[in-house]
Amino acid sequence: MPRTCSIARTLAVVGERWSLLVVRELFLGVRRFADIQQATGAPPAVLSDRLRSLVAVGVLETRPYREQGARTRNEYRLTAAGRELAPVLAALRDWGDEHCCEADGPPVVVVHEGCGAAVHARMVCDDGHRVESPRDLTRRVLIP
Amino acid sequence: MPRTCSIARTLAVVGERWSLLVVRELFLGVRRFADIQQATGAPPAVLSDRLRSLVAVGVLETRPYREQGARTRNEYRLTAAGRELAPVLAALRDWGDEHCCEADGPPVVVVHEGCGAAVHARMVCDDGHRVESPRDLTRRVLIP
Repeated sequence: MPRTCSIARTLAVVGERWSLLVVRELFLGVRRFADIQQATGAPPAVLSDRLRSLVAVGVLETRPYREQGARTRNEYRLTAAGRELAPVLAALRDWGDEHCCEADGPPVVVVHEGCGAAVHARMVCDDGHRVESPRDLTRRVLIP
Repeated sequence: MPRTCSIARTLAVVGERWSLLVVRELFLGVRRFADIQQATGAPPAVLSDRLRSLVAVGVLETRPYREQGARTRNEYRLTAAGRELAPVLAALRDWGDEHCCEADGPPVVVVHEGCGAAVHARMVCDDGHRVESPRDLTRRVLIP
């Protein structure tokens, strides 16, 4: 029996190829199909499917817009649940910066608007300690 | 042109279906093919492919073992790079705990061994501020 697991449940929702790259674009303020398509490189039919799924699961929502002389189309926005994926993207970016960059280094740095310091995803406990190593984690199964 | 992006690069390495669930099992100390297969539910041929890829990219390494009367087989261990995926899994788990659990709540809680408090993935800047909202992030493009 596969484990009951929130990681698996999240991947079932946003783990398909392109889905997290679509979410990345929405964070960057890219909202329209053609622009998302260009920025991700996803094939249009696949992108269309991913957008539909992400709306269905409540990560994105649509808003109609209309350019002069054209028919009404939808653009996409992150929902509150979608915005809460920011730490997932931050953790993926950190890992890629560390392990997937050539000698030229990370292509982008994300900084804290308030102070200008670089932002990373860290494991932190509710008592405020930073957890440096996964060896310092203990897992308590509540629902087997 | 698709963006130059560490998120995309990381997903190219660990974003295939099952890959992060395999990494999860390794964190839990599950090391052998049959056990990983049972815990993830991945089809054996797909699992075999994913394990091979994760070894090729340096997330896992193999170690031979031999049970009495059987041929030598490989078990799998996380490399240092693989262990650095812990914040990715923590962020995925947090999101699933929040958005994919029924009324019965999260199936697992991960706590800090030192103090027993629950551990989460948080966005933190190098000056030590916790970043509460993605609106407080600014992105500086270094390599377009």
